[in-house]
Amino acid sequence: MISIPPIDGQAIQRRLMELSRHSVLKDRLWRPSYTPQEAEVRRQLSGWFAQAGLQPRTDAVGNLYGHAGGAGAKTVLVGSHIDTVKDAGAYDGCAGVLCGMAALQALLAQYGPPRVPVELIAMLEEEGSRFSDASFWGSRALTGQTSRDMLSCRDEDGISLARAMEEAGFDPAKIDTARREDLACYLELHIEQGPILEHRGVQLGIVDSITGIGILRVEITGRANHAGTTPMDLRLDALQAGAKLVLQLPELARVFPNATATAGSFQVLPGSANVVPGQVTMLIDFRAARQEDLDALGLLLDQAAHELEGEGFAVSTHFRDFILPAPLDPGLGRLQEECARDLGYSAMHMISGAGHDCQFFARQVPSALLFIPCQEGRSHCPQEYAAPEDLSRGARMLAATLYRLAWVD
Amino acid sequence: MISIPPIDGQAIQRRLMELSRHSVLKDRLWRPSYTPQEAEVRRQLSGWFAQAGLQPRTDAVGNLYGHAGGAGAKTVLVGSHIDTVKDAGAYDGCAGVLCGMAALQALLAQYGPPRVPVELIAMLEEEGSRFSDASFWGSRALTGQTSRDMLSCRDEDGISLARAMEEAGFDPAKIDTARREDLACYLELHIEQGPILEHRGVQLGIVDSITGIGILRVEITGRANHAGTTPMDLRLDALQAGAKLVLQLPELARVFPNATATAGSFQVLPGSANVVPGQVTMLIDFRAARQEDLDALGLLLDQAAHELEGEGFAVSTHFRDFILPAPLDPGLGRLQEECARDLGYSAMHMISGAGHDCQFFARQVPSALLFIPCQEGRSHCPQEYAAPEDLSRGARMLAATLYRLAWVD
Repeated sequence: MISIPPIDGQAIQRRLMELSRHSVLKDRLWRPSYTPQEAEVRRQLSGWFAQAGLQPRTDAVGNLYGHAGGAGAKTVLVGSHIDTVKDAGAYDGCAGVLCGMAALQALLAQYGPPRVPVELIAMLEEEGSRFSDASFWGSRALTGQTSRDMLSCRDEDGISLARAMEEAGFDPAKIDTARREDLACYLELHIEQGPILEHRGVQLGIVDSITGIGILRVEITGRANHAGTTPMDLRLDALQAGAKLVLQLPELARVFPNATATAGSFQVLPGSANVVPGQVTMLIDFRAARQEDLDALGLLLDQAAHELEGEGFAVSTHFRDFILPAPLDPGLGRLQEECARDLGYSAMHMISGAGHDCQFFARQVPSALLFIPCQEGRSHCPQEYAAPEDLSRGARMLAATLYRLAWVD
Repeated sequence: MISIPPIDGQAIQRRLMELSRHSVLKDRLWRPSYTPQEAEVRRQLSGWFAQAGLQPRTDAVGNLYGHAGGAGAKTVLVGSHIDTVKDAGAYDGCAGVLCGMAALQALLAQYGPPRVPVELIAMLEEEGSRFSDASFWGSRALTGQTSRDMLSCRDEDGISLARAMEEAGFDPAKIDTARREDLACYLELHIEQGPILEHRGVQLGIVDSITGIGILRVEITGRANHAGTTPMDLRLDALQAGAKLVLQLPELARVFPNATATAGSFQVLPGSANVVPGQVTMLIDFRAARQEDLDALGLLLDQAAHELEGEGFAVSTHFRDFILPAPLDPGLGRLQEECARDLGYSAMHMISGAGHDCQFFARQVPSALLFIPCQEGRSHCPQEYAAPEDLSRGARMLAATLYRLAWVD
């Protein structure tokens, strides 16, 4: 049995509130990467890391590390990210960093330095809220999964990622030095950003796989006509076709376990009240935990779209932005199960429907992702909230898992 | 039997092309009211009117008349409008003016001056393409159906209708003098702007009624959620609800003869590919030829929208922009039938699904609207086209009808 001391969830929450004050917006939270506000957060965290016994250092892209000590060739890494979306909540990303910090602080206090090297990390630009073509920039750099193109992608003001790095004091020529090839494993805690844990009354989510994501762009072309002079039976109304396709999404997604299909972007042209819609364009976001399911769902969606051609519509489809599912490590999954049992917490296995830094590590080293509940599943909005007791449980789970990985044999 | 001489449809078409060159845009046609381009058209038409034996004069709002002679208390009026929508075709409006001119010219040549006063009219701002809150401005002024508010409505550049009038040399204080209370009847020819005549292979449309129009604004609110982390069965996807409502529109419209229901304006919020739609707003344009049908259809649409509340959505609806149906004169309808038979043209009775100047006259005097086919029903676009033989048939129909109304006893 592991003995993990209590961890103060309210203290974690207070620190989350403190970090959330560093925003480029006045009354709302937005902390894009390579801004003075992000630098302030790094400064603040460096101080806290040092107090917690974690030796701070910043790598070539701006990821902030805190070294907990330990010796050996392979490092156990735990952490998450500190950048936020526009109009964000205080928990997404930072909760993982601060729960990791609280876990390491508790372990250092109780058990002294770890047996093997353990580091905490606060990564940046996970959300891609400043550089949408370089999301997961911090974990990509750390795992060697960037591309040169990314340095030239631009923010809304036309500033390239390379220039933003320079302005923040980082040298784009040196990003390769951020690469870590000495990792033993990676652990991440994150708020669920969905309603499942709360809905089922379960305290922790052990993530088996991070969903794969496909985007299918569908353009349906009918015939724009005068809404008054074109009888109902002589129309080729693209919105009628689009609505039919949209209503098929739930049934097609339900064919596969944990799959989703969503038409979040849906545009109707020309868009005047008195004109029969001539064209509908939608982006169908579809997700599944297994590659074969993702492929099959994509195929079904594409077929459903093209079936509208039988009614006279012109349909064009285009797959873009495929992200492969990232299965996480089953061994670490079992370890998390044991830790939850030891701590007396309820836990369930689940899928992450959102992307996380963890998926870039999962391609290279055993990786684990732990979810804590968030109120009403809300996230990426000011109402985002996780209760202190959930933060505490999450931090203690990280501590128990790290203890098993890095303190005992 | 009436003897109506041949009328050269190609000559009418050439003049339509000539008028279409007067545009405020470089390569496309847009002729808003009270612009120098509209004044040029009036100058051009005045010359043609005079050549045709029609004494030109412009009234206080800018409607251009051409007097064919004749004496008596009540005037037979024939015409249409000369303003256009943005990116217009050459036929909408002007075809009615030039076919009327050709008809009167032919009658004057064949039969001399009419028995009773006959005037041709070229009205303005029917489309409301410059002053959207003052559409049908010319016919409203002529029939005393303007409101003071209209003078203060503004175009896209913030110029009020009153100021635009002044800049074009008209005095807004005098618009009441444009009012005609001496009309015997009103005749208008217009391209159908729909596909029915072409689809059925019929040469002329005798309009029995101009449709009434209602706009129902429907706002459906569900719950915006992360598209990846929210399972399909825990969603309240406003687009799913909106699509269900849209698919009901055709069946609800088909309950009533000649009715339509169209969701031309349809917006999905927040509109990101990876967010479950939280809100859908649509404008449902619905039309019917009889008031009781229009009312009943509006009720059915409103009920269908509110039925979505049973699935957990918040639904708010709001009726706006009701335009009453305008039944046209059955006596003039029968006269048009006889004229078509005499001329050997095929004709069918139909409904106008679009609004026309004619509807403002129909509330006060016996009024008739004649449709000629237009290619593929296209209108309000550069592809708008009516064949010379259809222009010729339309002009001869006007001539036959005018002959019966104003030349013979």
